[in-house]
Amino acid sequence: MAIVLGPNRYGKAETRVVRVVRDGGTHHIKDINVSSALSGDMEDVHLTGDNGNVLPTDTQKNTAYAFAKKYGVDQIEDFALLLARHYVDSQAPIRHARVEIEEYFWDRIPVSDGPHLGLREEQYSFVRSGREVRTCVVHYDQDEGATIVSGLKNLVVLNSTGSEFHGYVEDEFTTLKPTNDRILATEVSAQWRHRGEHGSFGRSYNEARQSLLEAFAETHSLSLQQTLYQMGRRVLNTRKEVCEVRMVMPNKHHFLVDLEPFGMDNPNEVFFAADRPYGLIEGSVLTDDAPAAGFAWN
Amino acid sequence: MAIVLGPNRYGKAETRVVRVVRDGGTHHIKDINVSSALSGDMEDVHLTGDNGNVLPTDTQKNTAYAFAKKYGVDQIEDFALLLARHYVDSQAPIRHARVEIEEYFWDRIPVSDGPHLGLREEQYSFVRSGREVRTCVVHYDQDEGATIVSGLKNLVVLNSTGSEFHGYVEDEFTTLKPTNDRILATEVSAQWRHRGEHGSFGRSYNEARQSLLEAFAETHSLSLQQTLYQMGRRVLNTRKEVCEVRMVMPNKHHFLVDLEPFGMDNPNEVFFAADRPYGLIEGSVLTDDAPAAGFAWN
Amino acid sequence: MAIVLGPNRYGKAETRVVRVVRDGGTHHIKDINVSSALSGDMEDVHLTGDNGNVLPTDTQKNTAYAFAKKYGVDQIEDFALLLARHYVDSQAPIRHARVEIEEYFWDRIPVSDGPHLGLREEQYSFVRSGREVRTCVVHYDQDEGATIVSGLKNLVVLNSTGSEFHGYVEDEFTTLKPTNDRILATEVSAQWRHRGEHGSFGRSYNEARQSLLEAFAETHSLSLQQTLYQMGRRVLNTRKEVCEVRMVMPNKHHFLVDLEPFGMDNPNEVFFAADRPYGLIEGSVLTDDAPAAGFAWN
Amino acid sequence: MAIVLGPNRYGKAETRVVRVVRDGGTHHIKDINVSSALSGDMEDVHLTGDNGNVLPTDTQKNTAYAFAKKYGVDQIEDFALLLARHYVDSQAPIRHARVEIEEYFWDRIPVSDGPHLGLREEQYSFVRSGREVRTCVVHYDQDEGATIVSGLKNLVVLNSTGSEFHGYVEDEFTTLKPTNDRILATEVSAQWRHRGEHGSFGRSYNEARQSLLEAFAETHSLSLQQTLYQMGRRVLNTRKEVCEVRMVMPNKHHFLVDLEPFGMDNPNEVFFAADRPYGLIEGSVLTDDAPAAGFAWN
Repeated sequence: MAIVLGPNRYGKAETRVVRVVRDGGTHHIKDINVSSALSGDMEDVHLTGDNGNVLPTDTQKNTAYAFAKKYGVDQIEDFALLLARHYVDSQAPIRHARVEIEEYFWDRIPVSDGPHLGLREEQYSFVRSGREVRTCVVHYDQDEGATIVSGLKNLVVLNSTGSEFHGYVEDEFTTLKPTNDRILATEVSAQWRHRGEHGSFGRSYNEARQSLLEAFAETHSLSLQQTLYQMGRRVLNTRKEVCEVRMVMPNKHHFLVDLEPFGMDNPNEVFFAADRPYGLIEGSVLTDDAPAAGFAWN
Repeated sequence: MAIVLGPNRYGKAETRVVRVVRDGGTHHIKDINVSSALSGDMEDVHLTGDNGNVLPTDTQKNTAYAFAKKYGVDQIEDFALLLARHYVDSQAPIRHARVEIEEYFWDRIPVSDGPHLGLREEQYSFVRSGREVRTCVVHYDQDEGATIVSGLKNLVVLNSTGSEFHGYVEDEFTTLKPTNDRILATEVSAQWRHRGEHGSFGRSYNEARQSLLEAFAETHSLSLQQTLYQMGRRVLNTRKEVCEVRMVMPNKHHFLVDLEPFGMDNPNEVFFAADRPYGLIEGSVLTDDAPAAGFAWN
Repeated sequence: MAIVLGPNRYGKAETRVVRVVRDGGTHHIKDINVSSALSGDMEDVHLTGDNGNVLPTDTQKNTAYAFAKKYGVDQIEDFALLLARHYVDSQAPIRHARVEIEEYFWDRIPVSDGPHLGLREEQYSFVRSGREVRTCVVHYDQDEGATIVSGLKNLVVLNSTGSEFHGYVEDEFTTLKPTNDRILATEVSAQWRHRGEHGSFGRSYNEARQSLLEAFAETHSLSLQQTLYQMGRRVLNTRKEVCEVRMVMPNKHHFLVDLEPFGMDNPNEVFFAADRPYGLIEGSVLTDDAPAAGFAWN
Repeated sequence: MAIVLGPNRYGKAETRVVRVVRDGGTHHIKDINVSSALSGDMEDVHLTGDNGNVLPTDTQKNTAYAFAKKYGVDQIEDFALLLARHYVDSQAPIRHARVEIEEYFWDRIPVSDGPHLGLREEQYSFVRSGREVRTCVVHYDQDEGATIVSGLKNLVVLNSTGSEFHGYVEDEFTTLKPTNDRILATEVSAQWRHRGEHGSFGRSYNEARQSLLEAFAETHSLSLQQTLYQMGRRVLNTRKEVCEVRMVMPNKHHFLVDLEPFGMDNPNEVFFAADRPYGLIEGSVLTDDAPAAGFAWN
């Protein structure tokens, strides 16, 4: 029996880059979190500590900053691919790069010039919108090229009706009562794989997000799985550049509070929002002509 | 030397109440987190474990739910006062109640009915807005009546210019260089004390919030302290029902990245958003006719 | 009506200092988190942005590091006082300093030299113990001198029996059933005020902590308030240099699971550890000859 | 182009079970967090919302509690397998179950009976040890049987010397200086795959953990990759029932503080413990006769 090195990668995680573009007096900001991970000829560094093939993680941090200056940051998918290609193309021992980026959204602060005037947007003042985080995971491989996965997380949604749950299996440990009207709430993490490496990622993001929201809102739900499937399906129907959607959706339980002991009924009006445990639904929806995913989801 | 009991209080923290109001097919939701803390004749329970004066924290949880049903939840300040009065008025040994509520905001999900139509809002589908949390702390005392403090937290703002820092004390440990142009970013926690216990708390909140944002945006800042003061001052000038504002504002440092080693200049374009350590500015602004705060800030 | 500046302070929060002492081949480490906050003649910086009295927070960070080198870090209370005095004594406009320090504990990694030999401790290899965080808050005021508060947080304890809860007030919203045997669990945050500014803080800490643990374990509890009082009392009886103890203790509810639907009894064997809501008990215990606290708890 | 359902699973996450065993007056506690995820014939629930094959997540929660009562909880791997088998064996449409368990450690509280006596352990009083979390992920598949992966996370270790980093690739973005003496610190997440489904998991855990610690302490490190490899190797050499180890190890950077501006040298004595960005090393070590992993790591 011998001991061997298996799959491995290394890099710099969570380099926080804020890029400002000054367009006259009007500023634009891009607020991102960049993580890069490289792999390739890395036997030596593991077995003997020889760093001859290792581009330091500190250099990866520097590169993120230097590229933000040199190329600017527009769509995170494009910026991630630029970085991933750079590592593989510039260093022979690096044969594969994975770059993950999170983007945080800011709105302009609206101010008024007087009591009878409308609001105008400030030129260089911003407030974190607090809505979901946009994400991407980009791989670039020396031999097999690039894969692009876009996504979002922390998108919390709730339907206060239009959700049922019944007809399920009952075994000796089942105590749940069926319901024809419940709150359905979840925190959507969704990722969608693009067919190619080029695209209008900004527009794609906005419409994929809107598709997820609309399908959540418009599906009369008999199970969270059904809702998840409809959400993925809607994205695939709306955005032809997408071939696969993967979602992780916790069921954020809202339990109806029993008010009978206090002589009150509770026709779906007062709920307890529970923390743990929670249902957890994971699923994927794809087109039957989707190219093989390869390393896209690693 | 004898050992004595000092100040104390007990209660149920973080009861998560979601209240739905069905207005025909249109639903309204209120998502709050209620914490109550009671004090009064509590010597016995501490010294001997006699619970004869103790209204259980479990009952406080139940009361929050029952009141949400019975009275509905409109402005959190009003709901908090209702609860606080109930405990003090209904239980003789309870002489003082403090109720703290957080409110989380939801937006309606906009959906389209077709490619050439505008968006309409769904009737019962919501997305967490993710913006700041609204807060209140209400005290009700058997002898001295009520105090109302409103507030917000997690309001993250950033000016990408319009901020300077120079002219400070330099001692043997000072290495900081003065600057005439930096990013100023902070996460605002603000609380404001009302003169009375009645008010239009919804409108008051919206305008206090807008005052904080506008003053942050419009102040050409020579120090974060100056910005803080202007923000508090703006609230006091806008909202006459408020007599005192307290703020906690971390300086979320955005350090200019040194790109010179890579042959690049960096005219305030690329920044590193740091986590720790951070500056922390705490201050209060009040009117000279503000009534004594008493227990309002406890 | 005029607008005035109220209480304020500013400083650098969470400077993470790791101090290594090399004693031959044996190393000692001290891992602390330092937050300093200064106050004094700060009207100008708030009203006009004049920083002439402001020692930058960046300098405070530097000072923490420089002092760690110059004086070493032994007991956190002593190091905090050293820093607090420095700011007030070296800068005329600074009249008051508050320094808060957290300390994280590390154990030496035990290693064996062979299958039949015992474990020995490595000389420079450590593992975070993960147990509670030690804390202190030290104030130094130009006119009134110093106050020292020591403490701990994140000390999670549980008694699996020896806890009852009954005889409480029952109102219309009470549904809780009394019990003669329950789990009592809490996460202790405790702070204790010293009479003077000098002391053997290391020994004091260890014995105060042990007193808290022993009193928790040995008190047959009829309420969490009773347990809290006994814990504070034990510290005061054990450590004469301490004159006041303040505690915050959430009741980490462990609910007995109803297994009857599955034909099983549950004689205090299987519990659900709940997150929210939770009881929250806050209280203080002091000696009747305790000097006035002044600003010690600010 | 048709749209199809891809891989999916659903279950109840984070059921918090505390199991007490009363052995006369001496109690034993087991504190675990159970997450189960099921898959199988789940087309209908996704496509039409028909729950006929769905065992509710609520039932999965109940089952965890009922099994804790019925069978007790000894080693988490055994308990996870018991649950996983139950779901697959009792429900025809369920063909695969994944059960993940975390275990939190508690120590007995030591108390003294008097000043001149030693400490004895309390019979039913516990303090959370705060050290690392023990983990397992168990799969059971109708056709392919079981896989067992054990592990730990949150194990934070630090060597204050014995670590170098030099000889790395330097490109145009490299500014890092080589070093022959640095702090090496990381938070170990490790998982190890067992060859079979039976074993002495308690002893295996303790020795695997000790191997990780010893290899970390005893490796003179030229890179974190080298340390990672040695840690995995040590586990494989010590525990023959293990065939593969996967590790995720962030490089928790401790930067030497530049004290020169203050006229001080800093011979590896004062460090700044940074948060972000951080290096991130992921790697696996396995035996060349390791059976195929199949779904073990999903």
